[in-house]
Amino acid sequence: MLSLDELDRLRVVLVDVRNPLNIGAAARAMSNFGFRRLRVVNPYEIAFQGARSAVKAGGILENAEKFDTVAEAVADCTLIIGTTAVGHRDLQHSLQRLPEAAPAIRAHLASGTCALLFGSEKFGLSNRDMSHCHWLVHIPTRTEHLSMNLGQAVAICLYELARHSVVTGKAGPEPEERAFAPAGEIERIYETLLAALQASDYPKLNSSDTFQSAVRRMVFRLRLHSGDAEFLLGMLRQIVWKLGRQNKAGK
Amino acid sequence: MLSLDELDRLRVVLVDVRNPLNIGAAARAMSNFGFRRLRVVNPYEIAFQGARSAVKAGGILENAEKFDTVAEAVADCTLIIGTTAVGHRDLQHSLQRLPEAAPAIRAHLASGTCALLFGSEKFGLSNRDMSHCHWLVHIPTRTEHLSMNLGQAVAICLYELARHSVVTGKAGPEPEERAFAPAGEIERIYETLLAALQASDYPKLNSSDTFQSAVRRMVFRLRLHSGDAEFLLGMLRQIVWKLGRQNKAGK
Repeated sequence: MLSLDELDRLRVVLVDVRNPLNIGAAARAMSNFGFRRLRVVNPYEIAFQGARSAVKAGGILENAEKFDTVAEAVADCTLIIGTTAVGHRDLQHSLQRLPEAAPAIRAHLASGTCALLFGSEKFGLSNRDMSHCHWLVHIPTRTEHLSMNLGQAVAICLYELARHSVVTGKAGPEPEERAFAPAGEIERIYETLLAALQASDYPKLNSSDTFQSAVRRMVFRLRLHSGDAEFLLGMLRQIVWKLGRQNKAGK
Repeated sequence: MLSLDELDRLRVVLVDVRNPLNIGAAARAMSNFGFRRLRVVNPYEIAFQGARSAVKAGGILENAEKFDTVAEAVADCTLIIGTTAVGHRDLQHSLQRLPEAAPAIRAHLASGTCALLFGSEKFGLSNRDMSHCHWLVHIPTRTEHLSMNLGQAVAICLYELARHSVVTGKAGPEPEERAFAPAGEIERIYETLLAALQASDYPKLNSSDTFQSAVRRMVFRLRLHSGDAEFLLGMLRQIVWKLGRQNKAGK
């Protein structure tokens, strides 16, 4: 069984969700399984307010946190996982079936925070949303009907995490001896790197999502530990500062 | 992975369900995991029609079968399982957690038909509904918030049945060498037994659900195999016939 601390280390993050019934259903499933930290990114305000009044879900909706961006919503998490129905998309991430992914998530929750992202009803997570993720999970549905109802998908993921009466131990792929840097710090590294590229007139640089997402994925794949991240960020900041001075001087 | 035959041996039975969204959600989850046999008992007609037009669920709603009673809906099944949130009720059945129950259900589906019953949104399955069941399963939710949304509960049960990529073999408690009698036959035994009691002026006999359900549970606990059931039914029918004649003669 997951401890209260472990339950609270998971953040359920709903991105661009439009239907208040789905926000309510997610909150109710969280309450059923003892998870309490709900975050919503860029919801329709009216849907979010509607959900708050729609169902009783043990205070979860009342305490839900609202963010404008995925980056902010996952900033304090050290493992970011996106959910996807797979489908046609050309995925740039490693992808696991939920039953196989769950032990790794549970192992991470023993000491680290984890964000589990769900995308909009119509489109799921965008490539840009996914660029914040370390890896992706999918619920094994049949090929002819991959896409699940959002509330049901949330319920199944939380059930899978909670279904074991005993924690199965460190079955995950990552040893947790050292703490990973939280996503907020990784994001700053990404931003600083981007600024450095910009300031460097990096030839392939452009403001497209495709490019920026590719950079972010690369940074996230580094799986930086706290000390290393701080170190790297310091270096990048220095580079950006230097580039800025040069560019100013060159004008 | 469950074969197509095994998937089709499971009947999802919704009893007294009132909300078309829930019927639709159940059908969609069935479609996601490849189950196709949906049965509804005593739905509000308008809810049932509403559900049919509400979601695309691969023909499942169009082919759903409607029954007036639980007995009719499970008549061709050899294993009947009820779902329950447990709660306050004084259960007369053996109860298993879903993760532990799933292997037994999968094993049964290798050769036998199984009905998985879900009750109404407000009250769940009644004691009378449960009297048709061999045993009960519950989804392990936390004590403070036991009751799940119906569509989510259906999705979780079907996910659990389908989640293994390989059938785990005969982990169930029952060897399947001989075929169990279908529930319809057991129901006839129950009815004939009740008629026999009636005709016998059985002292504790009354028409209350409590009494009749207790009788039905007893009959179902027998787990009769086909040949035995036929044999028993023949005996009971003979008894009833005899009792009828005596009573007529005694007037």
